[in-house]
Amino acid sequence: MPLALHAQDKAAESWLPSLITSTPQEGFELAVKLSRMGVKSTQPNKEVLFRERGKYAESGEALIQASHVVAVHFQTIAAANDYWK
Amino acid sequence: MPLALHAQDKAAESWLPSLITSTPQEGFELAVKLSRMGVKSTQPNKEVLFRERGKYAESGEALIQASHVVAVHFQTIAAANDYWK
Amino acid sequence: MPLALHAQDKAAESWLPSLITSTPQEGFELAVKLSRMGVKSTQPNKEVLFRERGKYAESGEALIQASHVVAVHFQTIAAANDYWK
Amino acid sequence: MPLALHAQDKAAESWLPSLITSTPQEGFELAVKLSRMGVKSTQPNKEVLFRERGKYAESGEALIQASHVVAVHFQTIAAANDYWK
Amino acid sequence: MPLALHAQDKAAESWLPSLITSTPQEGFELAVKLSRMGVKSTQPNKEVLFRERGKYAESGEALIQASHVVAVHFQTIAAANDYWK
Amino acid sequence: MPLALHAQDKAAESWLPSLITSTPQEGFELAVKLSRMGVKSTQPNKEVLFRERGKYAESGEALIQASHVVAVHFQTIAAANDYWK
Repeated sequence: MPLALHAQDKAAESWLPSLITSTPQEGFELAVKLSRMGVKSTQPNKEVLFRERGKYAESGEALIQASHVVAVHFQTIAAANDYWK
Repeated sequence: MPLALHAQDKAAESWLPSLITSTPQEGFELAVKLSRMGVKSTQPNKEVLFRERGKYAESGEALIQASHVVAVHFQTIAAANDYWK
Repeated sequence: MPLALHAQDKAAESWLPSLITSTPQEGFELAVKLSRMGVKSTQPNKEVLFRERGKYAESGEALIQASHVVAVHFQTIAAANDYWK
Repeated sequence: MPLALHAQDKAAESWLPSLITSTPQEGFELAVKLSRMGVKSTQPNKEVLFRERGKYAESGEALIQASHVVAVHFQTIAAANDYWK
Repeated sequence: MPLALHAQDKAAESWLPSLITSTPQEGFELAVKLSRMGVKSTQPNKEVLFRERGKYAESGEALIQASHVVAVHFQTIAAANDYWK
Repeated sequence: MPLALHAQDKAAESWLPSLITSTPQEGFELAVKLSRMGVKSTQPNKEVLFRERGKYAESGEALIQASHVVAVHFQTIAAANDYWK
C-alpha cells in the first residue's frame, strides 16, 4: 500500500465523473475500471503493471482475487444505481 | 488486474441486462456468472481460463476463494431483489 | 473460476426456494449450505470435493477462510430476515 | 468447505437464539462465537480444532484473517442492533 | 479460530461501551482497536502477540491484510455514526 | 495487528475531518488515503513502509490485495456521499 502516490504526475484528468450507468453491464465494466484504478493508485508505472498483469492473468488464484475486487466495486455501483430497477 | 481489456474484441453482446431474478436459486446462478465474468474481464483467453480452471477446481483453498466471490455477488443480487420477499 | 458449469447435469432440483428462516441458527445453517453450493458450482465432482474437504478441514487457515465465506452469506441472510427481530 | 456436515450428530442444541445483545461488547463476543461456529461447521472434530488452533494462534497472518471474519460478523450484528443507539 | 477463549481471565473490563465517536478520525482509531481486539480474542497471550506483531509489521502483504480488517470495521463504525453528517 | 500504536508520537494532526467529497474521484482518492492510513496504523515506521511499498508494488497479487482494501473503503465513502447523486 503506497504511502505516497509515486506517479510522476498526479492523474489530473477526470476519470470518475459519476457512479451512475445506464445498464448493469456498464456498471460491471465501471467496477472493473475501479479495480484497475485501485491497482494503478498503488503502482502507476505502466511497465510494471503490464509485466505483473502478464503473470497474474495466468494464475487461477490471482484471477479469483481480481474477480473478488470487481465484486466489491460492483456491489457499490449497483447500490448507487438502485440496482437499475 | 489488467489495465486494458486484452480481449481481441470487446464482449459486444449484452450479457447482463438485469439483476432481477424470479428465485433465490436463479439469483445464486447469476452470482456464479458474475464471478466468472470478473475472471474473464481479467483474462479473456479461453485456453488459459480452461487450463487454470482445471487447476483451481482441484484445490480446496481456491474453491473456497471462488465461493467467497460468489457470496459477495449473491449479497448484491439478493439486495437487488429485496431478498425475494 | 469455471467458465462453464462442468456438472454432468445441471443441478435441476430446487435447492434454494427462499432466504427466509425461522431462527438465526437456521439462517446460519443456510449460510453454510450456500458456501458449500458456491464450492460445488465451481467443482461439481463429489470425489474431488470429498478429497479436498479432507485436506482443508485439517488446515487452520483454510478453516478460517471457509468461516469467512459463511460470514458473508450469513450477513445476506440476516438482512433478508430483518435480523429475526 | 465440507459438502456434508461430518459431525456424528448434528449440533441439536440451540446455540444462536438471537442476534440482539445489550452492548457492543457483547455483540463483539457474539461475532467471535459466530466466527468459531463457522470453523466448527467445517470441522466438528474437537481434536483437530484444538491442534489447528494451536498453530494459527501463533501465526500473525492467520490471526489477522481470524480478526477479518470477526469484523464481518460484527458488521452484521451491529446492523441487527441498530448500532446500539 | 479458537474454540474456547484461552485467556486466563476473560477480559472483564468494559472496552467497547459504544460505536459512536465525535469525528471520522476517532471512528478510524476505534476501527483499528476493534481489529486488534479481534486478534486478541483469538490469541490473548501478549508475548505471542508482541512477537507476531514484530513479524507482520515488517511484511507488506500482512500490512495490507491488516488494513483490510480496519476497512471492514471502519465501514461498520461509519454507518453507526451516519457518516458523521 | 499491533496491540499498541508504536508510533513515537501519536498522529496528533487531524487527517480525517470528514468523509464528504465533492466528486466520486475525490472519494476514490480518500479511499486510497484511508487504506494507507490503515497500513500506517499498523506500521508507523516510514523506512519500513517505504521498503515494503517497493516490494508489494512489484507484485501483482499484492497489488490486487491493495486494490481490494481501496474497494472496501470506497464502498463506505460512496454510501457516506449518497453516491454523489
